[in-house]
Amino acid sequence: MTEPISLTTALASFTELWSPRIVARVNDYDIRVAKVHGEHVWHVHDHTDEFFLVLDGELTIALRDRTVLLRRGDVFTVSRGTEHKPSSQTGASILMVEPSGTLTVGDRHDEVPAHVDATTGHIL
Amino acid sequence: MTEPISLTTALASFTELWSPRIVARVNDYDIRVAKVHGEHVWHVHDHTDEFFLVLDGELTIALRDRTVLLRRGDVFTVSRGTEHKPSSQTGASILMVEPSGTLTVGDRHDEVPAHVDATTGHIL
Repeated sequence: MTEPISLTTALASFTELWSPRIVARVNDYDIRVAKVHGEHVWHVHDHTDEFFLVLDGELTIALRDRTVLLRRGDVFTVSRGTEHKPSSQTGASILMVEPSGTLTVGDRHDEVPAHVDATTGHIL
Repeated sequence: MTEPISLTTALASFTELWSPRIVARVNDYDIRVAKVHGEHVWHVHDHTDEFFLVLDGELTIALRDRTVLLRRGDVFTVSRGTEHKPSSQTGASILMVEPSGTLTVGDRHDEVPAHVDATTGHIL
């Protein structure tokens, strides 16, 4: 085990958008934080749910049948197999929980734009 | 899938200490929040790590060889098999990530005092 990590410090250590950093692990799950602004890409995780907590700002998650808005301190889980597209008009910092190895763009996705990092998360 | 949940609203909906509420699930994991004040109990989870994020206040986690202090916005994972005793002198609100069914007092523990809820988490 290591020392506690400050999410504020962790978020201050990088500037890349849509490029999650792994701040902790719980068994075979990652706790990731990311800075986001603008639009991610439509994608789906066929085999896993994905949990979101908004640490700062506002995050919109488009689903095919509706759109959910998460404000600071809101949590939401996107169920496996559900197409979704995160975005943030104002910018946000978010925390995610998902199995280690989960790709940010899922198992199926639209064409990935250059500003979206297709990654399983970076070490802090 | 349901609507987003505000952690502030969730925390305002109950007063019991050391009695986690399940605010979301991710596959077979729970996202739980709890209000804490005073001392929990020495215990160990033999088969799972346990993740802590301090939402407000300060949380101390005693381990057998050291003590870690988590301030607001700090994260820490207690590794499986590690004896630990959470406490908070000032009171705190915390978020935890652990497999559904995980007991708050672990697989082995000291005598559970009346103010500690031995539970696998309550529905919000």
